[in-house]
Amino acid sequence: MTDPQPARHFASDNYAGVHPEVLDAIVAANVGHVPAYGDDPWTERLQDVVRGHLGESATAYPVLNGTGANVVALQAMLPRWGAVVCTEAAHVQNDENAAPERVGGLKLLTVPAPDGRLTPELVERQAWGFGDVHRAQPGVVSLTQSTELGTVYTPDQVRALCDQAHALGMRVHVDGARLANAAASLGLPLRALTTDCGVDVVSLGGTKNGLLLGEAVVVLDPAAVDGVGYLRKSGMQLASKMRFVSAQLVALLEGDLWLRSAAHANAMAARLRAGVDAIGTLDVTQPTEANAVFVRLPAAVAAELRRRWRFYDWDHADGTVRLMCAFDTTAQDVDDLLAALRDALARA
Amino acid sequence: MTDPQPARHFASDNYAGVHPEVLDAIVAANVGHVPAYGDDPWTERLQDVVRGHLGESATAYPVLNGTGANVVALQAMLPRWGAVVCTEAAHVQNDENAAPERVGGLKLLTVPAPDGRLTPELVERQAWGFGDVHRAQPGVVSLTQSTELGTVYTPDQVRALCDQAHALGMRVHVDGARLANAAASLGLPLRALTTDCGVDVVSLGGTKNGLLLGEAVVVLDPAAVDGVGYLRKSGMQLASKMRFVSAQLVALLEGDLWLRSAAHANAMAARLRAGVDAIGTLDVTQPTEANAVFVRLPAAVAAELRRRWRFYDWDHADGTVRLMCAFDTTAQDVDDLLAALRDALARA
Amino acid sequence: MTDPQPARHFASDNYAGVHPEVLDAIVAANVGHVPAYGDDPWTERLQDVVRGHLGESATAYPVLNGTGANVVALQAMLPRWGAVVCTEAAHVQNDENAAPERVGGLKLLTVPAPDGRLTPELVERQAWGFGDVHRAQPGVVSLTQSTELGTVYTPDQVRALCDQAHALGMRVHVDGARLANAAASLGLPLRALTTDCGVDVVSLGGTKNGLLLGEAVVVLDPAAVDGVGYLRKSGMQLASKMRFVSAQLVALLEGDLWLRSAAHANAMAARLRAGVDAIGTLDVTQPTEANAVFVRLPAAVAAELRRRWRFYDWDHADGTVRLMCAFDTTAQDVDDLLAALRDALARA
Amino acid sequence: MTDPQPARHFASDNYAGVHPEVLDAIVAANVGHVPAYGDDPWTERLQDVVRGHLGESATAYPVLNGTGANVVALQAMLPRWGAVVCTEAAHVQNDENAAPERVGGLKLLTVPAPDGRLTPELVERQAWGFGDVHRAQPGVVSLTQSTELGTVYTPDQVRALCDQAHALGMRVHVDGARLANAAASLGLPLRALTTDCGVDVVSLGGTKNGLLLGEAVVVLDPAAVDGVGYLRKSGMQLASKMRFVSAQLVALLEGDLWLRSAAHANAMAARLRAGVDAIGTLDVTQPTEANAVFVRLPAAVAAELRRRWRFYDWDHADGTVRLMCAFDTTAQDVDDLLAALRDALARA
Repeated sequence: MTDPQPARHFASDNYAGVHPEVLDAIVAANVGHVPAYGDDPWTERLQDVVRGHLGESATAYPVLNGTGANVVALQAMLPRWGAVVCTEAAHVQNDENAAPERVGGLKLLTVPAPDGRLTPELVERQAWGFGDVHRAQPGVVSLTQSTELGTVYTPDQVRALCDQAHALGMRVHVDGARLANAAASLGLPLRALTTDCGVDVVSLGGTKNGLLLGEAVVVLDPAAVDGVGYLRKSGMQLASKMRFVSAQLVALLEGDLWLRSAAHANAMAARLRAGVDAIGTLDVTQPTEANAVFVRLPAAVAAELRRRWRFYDWDHADGTVRLMCAFDTTAQDVDDLLAALRDALARA
Repeated sequence: MTDPQPARHFASDNYAGVHPEVLDAIVAANVGHVPAYGDDPWTERLQDVVRGHLGESATAYPVLNGTGANVVALQAMLPRWGAVVCTEAAHVQNDENAAPERVGGLKLLTVPAPDGRLTPELVERQAWGFGDVHRAQPGVVSLTQSTELGTVYTPDQVRALCDQAHALGMRVHVDGARLANAAASLGLPLRALTTDCGVDVVSLGGTKNGLLLGEAVVVLDPAAVDGVGYLRKSGMQLASKMRFVSAQLVALLEGDLWLRSAAHANAMAARLRAGVDAIGTLDVTQPTEANAVFVRLPAAVAAELRRRWRFYDWDHADGTVRLMCAFDTTAQDVDDLLAALRDALARA
Repeated sequence: MTDPQPARHFASDNYAGVHPEVLDAIVAANVGHVPAYGDDPWTERLQDVVRGHLGESATAYPVLNGTGANVVALQAMLPRWGAVVCTEAAHVQNDENAAPERVGGLKLLTVPAPDGRLTPELVERQAWGFGDVHRAQPGVVSLTQSTELGTVYTPDQVRALCDQAHALGMRVHVDGARLANAAASLGLPLRALTTDCGVDVVSLGGTKNGLLLGEAVVVLDPAAVDGVGYLRKSGMQLASKMRFVSAQLVALLEGDLWLRSAAHANAMAARLRAGVDAIGTLDVTQPTEANAVFVRLPAAVAAELRRRWRFYDWDHADGTVRLMCAFDTTAQDVDDLLAALRDALARA
Repeated sequence: MTDPQPARHFASDNYAGVHPEVLDAIVAANVGHVPAYGDDPWTERLQDVVRGHLGESATAYPVLNGTGANVVALQAMLPRWGAVVCTEAAHVQNDENAAPERVGGLKLLTVPAPDGRLTPELVERQAWGFGDVHRAQPGVVSLTQSTELGTVYTPDQVRALCDQAHALGMRVHVDGARLANAAASLGLPLRALTTDCGVDVVSLGGTKNGLLLGEAVVVLDPAAVDGVGYLRKSGMQLASKMRFVSAQLVALLEGDLWLRSAAHANAMAARLRAGVDAIGTLDVTQPTEANAVFVRLPAAVAAELRRRWRFYDWDHADGTVRLMCAFDTTAQDVDDLLAALRDALARA
């Protein structure tokens, strides 16, 4: 007898579907004709909503996916000779098939960051050579919040990076595909992690927090960018029926859906982490500060769990896997996984 | 008293919303977790549906918008030193802010085509210089079906272009953002305009025919391309929750929705054209073979109509405007516009 | 008995070798070590020499070839979303294997110009759509002086293009691979064709006027560019032993070598043109204003001449060939060619 | 009294001028007209000379500088979705202002290599993820010989990298800006380090070994590349008067000039190293296997030496400087530097 397939995996928050409230917003936006490419009431409303979160200077440019948000943002922040300082684990470095380089001609200058977080000391290793024509010119520090390793920067940590960058004449970009999870983790509003720290531009995530599809490049300091609208188009990130992207983002952000969903995903990860810790014999390789748990599993145990659930191998060499919770992960899902994990360990 | 705003404009078929059957398909796909990036049942089903239309060799790569479909397709068909022969009116030339050049490093070699249709004679003007390192190497003929000027290629015309291209060692791409309108216009299946003529790759349109968002790069001859999957990712056209793009395309294509919607839009354009012709004094600048009417209006008349409807100026110099019908344009919409046009002309 | 190979062809001015005075300058620069990449006395001296010709605001960036000069200049003048208005016959459009597009992501917006010269009316056909994100933004008018068709713009014609461009917020680039020939033709200093007309940036040619290798991007208005030094490096146009490029340019420009060489080449073309005209039966397709003659030859006659001389087919369809004179073409070379031409015509 | 400026520095081998035999070759090539762009006797002769060194399958494409050689070679070896594995110290990574990324859209996947040499273990850290669309596809291992740190790979070390790469379906590129120095160091012919080890493509250096300007992309396995000629042109590396680049390369390679010059530079570095070692108190940070010495100097000592000589800071943090010898560095130059070094240390 084969194991039944679960309704929910632990692979990625983008394995989840659309939050019902978001779907309702799509349906509600489906009324007659409206101008294409963003000249519509939903996109206008989104500006108000985003300004409410991120300050009066904020402007939101809805785009189609996270890679698109990052590449449009970084191009708008950098001249043709610019470079981005980021971690070796950054999504822009590892998971975008070199879109920053291929679409934007950008150079990424990476530093190792064991827990996924940049520090001023790490940035210093690459932020040099200003004025040297042989060196791609460091112009942006890009940090991911929450990080690819499930950790969260505190406002002080973000502020320190912004202060350093600005003192060097650089700008700060936040890959906020999971910014909501960081805010929920810290119990802070979105602006406390961004605008208030001096961040210049944010890739504000939607898809991983319950949207069908949709992110936004949010410019916090207008002086930090040039040509976002043109770059969104030439970067193939301009939706013709933009109202349906904007309406989703409005649904996510105008009330507390963004927070409810992110806090729930975080809570499920915390529950999973507690259960793993209770087992007592497993090596958890990262702090669990957002919605992911990184844990080393014996190969046989991982294989056993894979009969029912999908999750990602993070490090083939040492057996670390990533277990990610989504807005719709249930306590029962977590408990089922933990029970299966205990069983598999007992049999191993 | 201001004029009431209409439910529907004549600006573009992307001013329309989502067809109800497509929206139903989105809702139906919103069940639990499925693997991201295309490893899902809807994307698998789409392959069957597309093969049913376009032949057993066809493979569909869902993407996010039309510019993305074109640029991914053309990159996959061409080496880094390649060039595309197309018309001066082509969408890739005019409406994509140079995404083919900027993202793909492609060269477009254009020819004037008064009615939007390439011919072998026109292609010949640019399809030369093979082996000359100074010249971007012509490798693809790209035609738009139905054209940007609302005209339609017959199968014989497409076949002639394919035969010529293949004899020259080139490949043929169809920008099929409105391929359904061409098929409906000719009363032919999609394959009669593509696979059966020797077309190699199609950008198969969805958004302009009632999808929320979604197109597909459809490869008809696998030997014509390389690396589509990689290029879709690096071109920022890979949806994580791809099931929702695929489900829409399945809804459009598995029954006759694609045909019903396109035929209706065409019929509305024909009704509009007949009404314009009946006025007797207006210069219609293109044959009305799909869902658009191009007509020269006195400036005052155009301004008058603009108080209620949006439509595009096509040629500022001679006053030509484009009036586009969508899947949801009604006979009453057309008749209202015609009545207003007659009134405005009478007053002018 | 085979025809003897001549010392000099009529194919291109880059078939010629190095002017002896330029070679002397190379030898003279070969003294010990000097800093690489332009921090050397010859490059410093070049700045003075160029300022003497083109005004106190001029800065010269030596580069390696003409394509490099054009692409570095145009990138420095344009944002990532920019476009260049030029003729269909422009070197950047036809002879650079899409380097502007592939290296710089630039869009070229072309207009037909039967004699190779842009006019404000022609520029107007492409200089529109400012602010429309769908359109590559016209930012530079690029003209070639003397043109690819052997014609020369007068200062008034250049000024009219500059005035128009500046009024539109655009900049003007001159592809001056043969600027010296234009100046010699008009009997004017270089600045009368550039700085004094409002030109912003010049690709100043050297190779076609007797250098071994070397051109310079000369910025006339510093506000028109950004990052030339970085773009020269990332565009692979930075010579490490730059002194040898600069020393050649100094040798060309500090005295009147540039003028002597160009005037001589022009005079040889004029002699050739007079001889062709004297034959009386041949169709000369362009005015002979610089160092090239365009003339239609019967196929058998062209073939006959090709037994001894190389020259370019310009239009296969109508039999036009281009006959180009260089700094070292002699009157005897011209007279030999004319004699052979008369013979071949007589036999044809 | 100011210190006299020396004839020769220790900054880089590109501070040197042109070897007299190379200059003679340039002068000798300056005879009349020859076809441009490589269709000339010198470029033909170069093919024979290169085949003599690197085997019958070798083809040489002369280019303008080292960055150009690398970027043309790597583009020709990789699809648009490709990536290059190299060290963090690689010239392509550090010294080309991201030309590989900006011109070629390439991704560089770096590994730390303390002595500048890749090993199979290091390559393994990045050579993974084949078939994963999210990851830039590793397709080339690029090693520098001699390395940026003055070390030399043995043939066995190169062969091990080639075997590994080929087993993975990858190709091997050698940045051979100083390949001659490696061959001289090992007392081996050029092919023993390249062709015989399985290397696929070499950037064969000229400028740093006494040329005015000129390198060559040498393809050893024709199956490893596509479109080199087109890419050389679109990459702005095609010299019109190519004979003068080829004639220099012929002069360097047809006799033993390449070896004499490289062996001399190496010997001068060895003399310098011996003198530094004899001082006894200085930390030499790399083996001296080619023409560079890396040594840590007290800041005051470095400043003292800088009054007369130029050399590069290699690591500001720990005071390491690079002292590079060229083909024309004399024993007296070395001894003068050593004497000044001893003096400065004594005073420090």
